Amino acid sequence: MRTSDEYFSDLKKMKPNLYIGGEKVGRDNPRIRPGVNVISTTFDLAKQPEWKCLLTTKSLSGREVNRFTQPPQNPHDLLQKQKMIRLLAQRVGGCVQRCMGYDALIALSIATKEVDEKYDTEYHQRFIKYLEYYQEHDLAAACAQTDMKGDRVKRPSEQPDPDAYVHIVDVREDGIIVRGAKISITMAAYADEIIVVPTRALREQDKDYAVAFAIRADWDGVRLITRPVQVREREVIKAPFPEYGVSDSVVVFDDTFIPKERVFMCKEWDFGRRLALLFADSHRHSYSGCKPAVSDILCGATALVAEANNIEGVAHVRQKLSEFAGGAELSYAAGIASAIYGEKTSSGTFFPNPVYTNVGRRLMGETIYHEFNILIEIAGGLSVTLPFEAEFYGEETKKDMDKYIVRNPNISAEDSHRIWRFIENIGASSMSHWYAIAGVHGGGSPIMETITLNVEYDYESKKNIAKYLAGINKELNQSKDLGIEPTFGSSLLD
Amino acid sequence: MRTSDEYFSDLKKMKPNLYIGGEKVGRDNPRIRPGVNVISTTFDLAKQPEWKCLLTTKSLSGREVNRFTQPPQNPHDLLQKQKMIRLLAQRVGGCVQRCMGYDALIALSIATKEVDEKYDTEYHQRFIKYLEYYQEHDLAAACAQTDMKGDRVKRPSEQPDPDAYVHIVDVREDGIIVRGAKISITMAAYADEIIVVPTRALREQDKDYAVAFAIRADWDGVRLITRPVQVREREVIKAPFPEYGVSDSVVVFDDTFIPKERVFMCKEWDFGRRLALLFADSHRHSYSGCKPAVSDILCGATALVAEANNIEGVAHVRQKLSEFAGGAELSYAAGIASAIYGEKTSSGTFFPNPVYTNVGRRLMGETIYHEFNILIEIAGGLSVTLPFEAEFYGEETKKDMDKYIVRNPNISAEDSHRIWRFIENIGASSMSHWYAIAGVHGGGSPIMETITLNVEYDYESKKNIAKYLAGINKELNQSKDLGIEPTFGSSLLD
Amino acid sequence: MRTSDEYFSDLKKMKPNLYIGGEKVGRDNPRIRPGVNVISTTFDLAKQPEWKCLLTTKSLSGREVNRFTQPPQNPHDLLQKQKMIRLLAQRVGGCVQRCMGYDALIALSIATKEVDEKYDTEYHQRFIKYLEYYQEHDLAAACAQTDMKGDRVKRPSEQPDPDAYVHIVDVREDGIIVRGAKISITMAAYADEIIVVPTRALREQDKDYAVAFAIRADWDGVRLITRPVQVREREVIKAPFPEYGVSDSVVVFDDTFIPKERVFMCKEWDFGRRLALLFADSHRHSYSGCKPAVSDILCGATALVAEANNIEGVAHVRQKLSEFAGGAELSYAAGIASAIYGEKTSSGTFFPNPVYTNVGRRLMGETIYHEFNILIEIAGGLSVTLPFEAEFYGEETKKDMDKYIVRNPNISAEDSHRIWRFIENIGASSMSHWYAIAGVHGGGSPIMETITLNVEYDYESKKNIAKYLAGINKELNQSKDLGIEPTFGSSLLD
Amino acid sequence: MRTSDEYFSDLKKMKPNLYIGGEKVGRDNPRIRPGVNVISTTFDLAKQPEWKCLLTTKSLSGREVNRFTQPPQNPHDLLQKQKMIRLLAQRVGGCVQRCMGYDALIALSIATKEVDEKYDTEYHQRFIKYLEYYQEHDLAAACAQTDMKGDRVKRPSEQPDPDAYVHIVDVREDGIIVRGAKISITMAAYADEIIVVPTRALREQDKDYAVAFAIRADWDGVRLITRPVQVREREVIKAPFPEYGVSDSVVVFDDTFIPKERVFMCKEWDFGRRLALLFADSHRHSYSGCKPAVSDILCGATALVAEANNIEGVAHVRQKLSEFAGGAELSYAAGIASAIYGEKTSSGTFFPNPVYTNVGRRLMGETIYHEFNILIEIAGGLSVTLPFEAEFYGEETKKDMDKYIVRNPNISAEDSHRIWRFIENIGASSMSHWYAIAGVHGGGSPIMETITLNVEYDYESKKNIAKYLAGINKELNQSKDLGIEPTFGSSLLD
Repeated sequence: MRTSDEYFSDLKKMKPNLYIGGEKVGRDNPRIRPGVNVISTTFDLAKQPEWKCLLTTKSLSGREVNRFTQPPQNPHDLLQKQKMIRLLAQRVGGCVQRCMGYDALIALSIATKEVDEKYDTEYHQRFIKYLEYYQEHDLAAACAQTDMKGDRVKRPSEQPDPDAYVHIVDVREDGIIVRGAKISITMAAYADEIIVVPTRALREQDKDYAVAFAIRADWDGVRLITRPVQVREREVIKAPFPEYGVSDSVVVFDDTFIPKERVFMCKEWDFGRRLALLFADSHRHSYSGCKPAVSDILCGATALVAEANNIEGVAHVRQKLSEFAGGAELSYAAGIASAIYGEKTSSGTFFPNPVYTNVGRRLMGETIYHEFNILIEIAGGLSVTLPFEAEFYGEETKKDMDKYIVRNPNISAEDSHRIWRFIENIGASSMSHWYAIAGVHGGGSPIMETITLNVEYDYESKKNIAKYLAGINKELNQSKDLGIEPTFGSSLLD
Repeated sequence: MRTSDEYFSDLKKMKPNLYIGGEKVGRDNPRIRPGVNVISTTFDLAKQPEWKCLLTTKSLSGREVNRFTQPPQNPHDLLQKQKMIRLLAQRVGGCVQRCMGYDALIALSIATKEVDEKYDTEYHQRFIKYLEYYQEHDLAAACAQTDMKGDRVKRPSEQPDPDAYVHIVDVREDGIIVRGAKISITMAAYADEIIVVPTRALREQDKDYAVAFAIRADWDGVRLITRPVQVREREVIKAPFPEYGVSDSVVVFDDTFIPKERVFMCKEWDFGRRLALLFADSHRHSYSGCKPAVSDILCGATALVAEANNIEGVAHVRQKLSEFAGGAELSYAAGIASAIYGEKTSSGTFFPNPVYTNVGRRLMGETIYHEFNILIEIAGGLSVTLPFEAEFYGEETKKDMDKYIVRNPNISAEDSHRIWRFIENIGASSMSHWYAIAGVHGGGSPIMETITLNVEYDYESKKNIAKYLAGINKELNQSKDLGIEPTFGSSLLD
Repeated sequence: MRTSDEYFSDLKKMKPNLYIGGEKVGRDNPRIRPGVNVISTTFDLAKQPEWKCLLTTKSLSGREVNRFTQPPQNPHDLLQKQKMIRLLAQRVGGCVQRCMGYDALIALSIATKEVDEKYDTEYHQRFIKYLEYYQEHDLAAACAQTDMKGDRVKRPSEQPDPDAYVHIVDVREDGIIVRGAKISITMAAYADEIIVVPTRALREQDKDYAVAFAIRADWDGVRLITRPVQVREREVIKAPFPEYGVSDSVVVFDDTFIPKERVFMCKEWDFGRRLALLFADSHRHSYSGCKPAVSDILCGATALVAEANNIEGVAHVRQKLSEFAGGAELSYAAGIASAIYGEKTSSGTFFPNPVYTNVGRRLMGETIYHEFNILIEIAGGLSVTLPFEAEFYGEETKKDMDKYIVRNPNISAEDSHRIWRFIENIGASSMSHWYAIAGVHGGGSPIMETITLNVEYDYESKKNIAKYLAGINKELNQSKDLGIEPTFGSSLLD
Repeated sequence: MRTSDEYFSDLKKMKPNLYIGGEKVGRDNPRIRPGVNVISTTFDLAKQPEWKCLLTTKSLSGREVNRFTQPPQNPHDLLQKQKMIRLLAQRVGGCVQRCMGYDALIALSIATKEVDEKYDTEYHQRFIKYLEYYQEHDLAAACAQTDMKGDRVKRPSEQPDPDAYVHIVDVREDGIIVRGAKISITMAAYADEIIVVPTRALREQDKDYAVAFAIRADWDGVRLITRPVQVREREVIKAPFPEYGVSDSVVVFDDTFIPKERVFMCKEWDFGRRLALLFADSHRHSYSGCKPAVSDILCGATALVAEANNIEGVAHVRQKLSEFAGGAELSYAAGIASAIYGEKTSSGTFFPNPVYTNVGRRLMGETIYHEFNILIEIAGGLSVTLPFEAEFYGEETKKDMDKYIVRNPNISAEDSHRIWRFIENIGASSMSHWYAIAGVHGGGSPIMETITLNVEYDYESKKNIAKYLAGINKELNQSKDLGIEPTFGSSLLD
């Protein structure tokens, strides 16, 4: 397994294909450093004895590997995945990022097998080979799913601009040529690899859009137009939170050649929806780890600022703090339930139950703005009117700031300043917008989960119950009428 | 194990001590029959092969017993308890009732052991003997917890009327004398036994209020002032739902003698809170089975009436249906998580994790009125303006009703009538009030769960995270700082 | 102006055409008496000096008439209408009912004029004559708008059963023949007259459905299939609330002849939507009087039961009480704004601003279940488990009930009982369902107001603002671009 | 009346006492320019014929003055104030700022009169003189109310640091000496004057904290530690929104001398609450103008981005757009109602009804985060991942960006870019945090309005109604029992 230094050193060897602020830059550009720091923790903690059992696991061939590189094989693996993500997210102040590539590996492990089963293709074997390479080099990939999409009410093949979705423009002996752009691709700028999967259900006429592959992030014909997000740097009161951040990229494929051994879907349009949902549902399960952590952080920040305001014991503050407990633990519980009631797929990968992942992810998407609202309600207006750090150290103003920043006499002026600066960072910066917006849209917005539930949820069994109680159906004796599996879970006997 | 006929026959042998509508009546009174029917299903389904694995289990001595009589020993038992309750609740249209006595047994199994451990008393042995008797006779008990409470801002010993909470008025060689009244006691009128536990934390001066015992429901000195709830009976279109219902009683103890072998707590005031919470938290876990079932029924009813209105495919209807999925499955997931992350107590009983039971139960209490609101929004005003059944069969009106009740041409007049009558029953009857109010208050209202969370939830670990990110604490290396247990759950390895 | 005795005496003279519980009955039937009592207050208070200025006004011919018979002519009339309805609703415990007919008169006063202006018809003159007759006899009418509707996704003329909406089956020299049924028609059973208006927008092929008329409630060919709603009668502790109630009817027109002078719309399909909305919007304005009163009652009930529980000063109770203030006064404010920014129509009738009536009405529909939820949360489970009145007076139980019903030592046993009985009546009876459901659906449910807003609200002016700020539009100088009328309201100068 | 050029020229003459980013700067500093631009519109629009009737009014001496300088005398003045603020807020993209000083003038006009009435002091005359000077020079003042507050659970005189609230340290013949700091003072950095009022109720021992005065913003002994907020400047696609912004200051009074003629309260502690609430309630009324405008802008932005996404007609989008209509118009209606049901004070100033201002303001505070949530839900993740402006014009990236930014083929690449850039500005910038946080806290947060309502709202009349209906009170004949004024509003007769 790599060290974080090795990871960064590998990054710096890459060809510059990032575009930021009008310049073409390499991976040593300081504006992407906050994102590099996030990924680094996934290497660092794998080496710490306390966290090793979360951050590492065995590969199928028995090698010790980073957990981010090995698809789950049983319910326990899903519980550990969830816990690992919550742990890391607490530490980096939010998005862990490396789970994207992990969820792409999970989705491909299943879909390649299923496509092979239907079409007698060889994608799964190809994928397993790629996975071994990935594990051996302990890689970190971004997953590029969301296309630009063009006109939202038209399907890919109906778009005025055929490049609105990434698609195959040519199939050659040794690979394929693709064109199009993926947007809002977090981590692409400091990933080793980019894994591409389809973004939606496809029809036969859309078959050129049924394409999945993995490629080095600095591959020929790939441009990363990158937008970094980070809080304002600090001069004096250094702290972990401002060291972390994120970059998103528009990933442009400009008639890019993808070698055959890196192609995992090629025109099997009837699996477009399946692969898109496998990634989405797996990623929604990842959210059952990171979103509770975001609630944890907001909860802790709110409790801390309540202490700074000396109102921690007030009834409405207690009530509001408990809302974070509800938000964090209900979504965490949904992740647990999706692990327990998950499914062993034909590939061997154990997959979380989609009903639970979707009700859990939707809850998070619906409550995130409210959680920020609570923080701000308790913190007060100072979160956005706090003078700049320089004023806390300016000759004529230091005395004023030191005197007036203290509300709770048990907290020093510097710690009071640190608290309010952190509240500004977490609650009123562009980074906090990024977390709020990712909370709504990352992995699919509430409306996407509603749509998935309308497909996955067994409404007919509910109608059967109502018909029975109303006297329309006379019988209700089969467990299948009810959506209850009486014998399930016997592996949990002790 | 008894049959439901044996249960009813046992009931009818009891001494009349029920008071309903100004009369003193026996257990054969037709007004409590709907409740008897509910309890009967817990006997009936235990005999059906399809459901046997849910409704029965092994006692500690290896005997096959009804699951409602045997405290859970492992996570799987809790999952099965939850499933059993969901199953039964779907079938009887709501409250299963027998879980109250079950949760009282669970609470006593733990508390008697813990009191013995501190005070070297013999409650646990006494309880185990009682439990064996209970299992042998396959009994069904009500649990009487809620006292009248008098002035809500005063403790028991400070009340103007000392009888506001049930208390010990005398301790004799062979037992104790108790006085007071428990209110809102569901099922007492058709229970074999009544189990009494304290309702709140106690101080030393409240020690006479630290009392727990079990007694036959027709015991001398016990009066049950009973209020039945049921939907209007039907003349023609019989159906299961109107056959089921509930009765609540004020259970008056009028200087009642309780024999020593039936006393499980006697003045150990420092365990008052523990026993009260053990029952409450276990019962909140039961709600993770029945409340999803109530959502299932409301979901099914809404889907059915949407079909009757021929608007099942409309966007806002689809969206609203999916809210039931969220309500049901998030609270069910909380129950699963509380089983998985539960705890083996010193008594051997496996107890659900209180954080998950409380976030789950609170969610249900907060959403139940909204769920009724959705049903009504889709059903329309007809739910409460539907003419009486007689008009559907009256000479001059039958033709009108048959003609005008049909909205969806694929549904017959009779089935349309059945649907609307069921909607009235489930959404606009005194029975539906009972379900809404039980949804808010049964097992503790949202404010009680918030209070429990403010005690149980680890807010300090969240503040540790915030302090770390803000740069106040320098380290965050111990799992105990974070509320994460890295190695937990290894029993779930496959 | 009539007395309430004269009103009831007139009712009793009517031909029996009510069907209740399998019988054909007259207006002296005790089951409709609670509704009669409601209407009676509208006559009684018109005679009381304190309320005369609210309950009466001048007719166009200068006669003193009951306000329920005279369309508003200016903003002040709308404010007084709103206040009158709030007053009456507080007194009868909810729905005032007589406003339905009033709103029908208001809608017809405007629509008949507008139809005449387009088609040179004589409806308005006919209507004015009818209005004078109505005022002279101080009549009380029900308005029958809601049709059975059949298949909800089909228009009237596309229905499998053409009678799903009331329609004209023949036009004769002296009048028309109509057929169909209106449902959920409140008050029809004890109204002097029934006024029929269309329920929706119509196309040319639906022109037979464009029909409006007024008719005596016992007219030949009219059947009222009636469903009364009332709380359980009391034996001992009589009180105003249980004396009031409501009945809804299916009003069947079985090839009924309507004389020409009573017909106010006959096939002018292009005014179907206009008339439907005029009634709906006027009725939504009425809700800005009665819904605040329902909040007032629920607020008062909650404050009273909080006092009985001795928790009136607790922080979360104070917070919840203030939610009623928000609900009541925001909807009342919407009514005020709709009066101030209303419009003088060509008929002289002053009509409330539809944006404000709709945002106000929708708010009420969205919050009503939540308001009941608050009441129940504060009241506790006793609201639905309270023993029957008989137990409070039974020989063996009176002492128990008197002792245990008291929680607040400052409130007598009888008043405690009265409070809890009232809470049961207002919060857990079929009457409370009626209020909740009317709160959602009466005058149009939230989804109907959303649809109206999507038509009436000036979204384009909002987009203009956004385009200006974004630099797409260069100018924003015209008040019409902004939806602001700078000079409006100069009549309010002092 | 001044021109905006004169205003800015006056500013530039002021003594530098601003501290920004470690430097002491004058009013010509570009970082406060966006705030200057906002205030400038209040001068500019007063000169435009279209808006003159909103932006100007007559002073008591009959002079034409800017409306921001003359307290309202009648309901119409309040309606015009509300409209003026909505208009200006739409134009500057949010906070109008100048209303703070206006509301301080309104509050002082009333409080000085009332203090004089009780104590026979001369504050009102002094204030009137100041007002004439203010009108003559067409000044723009900030109001400094919020103190640093120190320990939130202690009163001013109990604080460990007596300077936690601004207070009088000495009273001299010719004036007073004050010390302390006011925080989060919007506009102070580009105001002509600063008006100071108390922030809370006071007791006798707090009497040194009962102080109100007005002073030039660059007065000796005043330091403004200033935090500007503005969106990122644009290089190419200039637009109005990024030109506007805001600065907040900590206003430090360091033993500052205030001349007698500028002192409006001096130790009259029993009027502390009154003056604090007069300002707060007047400012909450101002919010009934600006908050609807913020909703208008967010509504327009959402509609615009929905159009850009080509999903404007989708059902859930329509529904969400209508929520802005509800938010904007309910709060606007509350402002109208507070004008109509306002009160003429002894000073002649007409004051808005506090119940309506508070229910209206609270609604806004409760919904603002949800409104941003809606915008983001419709806009999607691109709001925060949009590449920088430079990438849209960079040599290697322009083609990509022009191609892929277009979703709706009817909107050009540049306009698409303008829309998304505006969405980023309004929904995901530090400016949008400022608006969200001001939406919660400006003029008092929801919890402050709840507290005010708990004082102002007539809960007793609601209990009277409940007691009457329950049969506890026998009579309900007096309008005062009901909180209804039957004759009110006769000035609205036409």
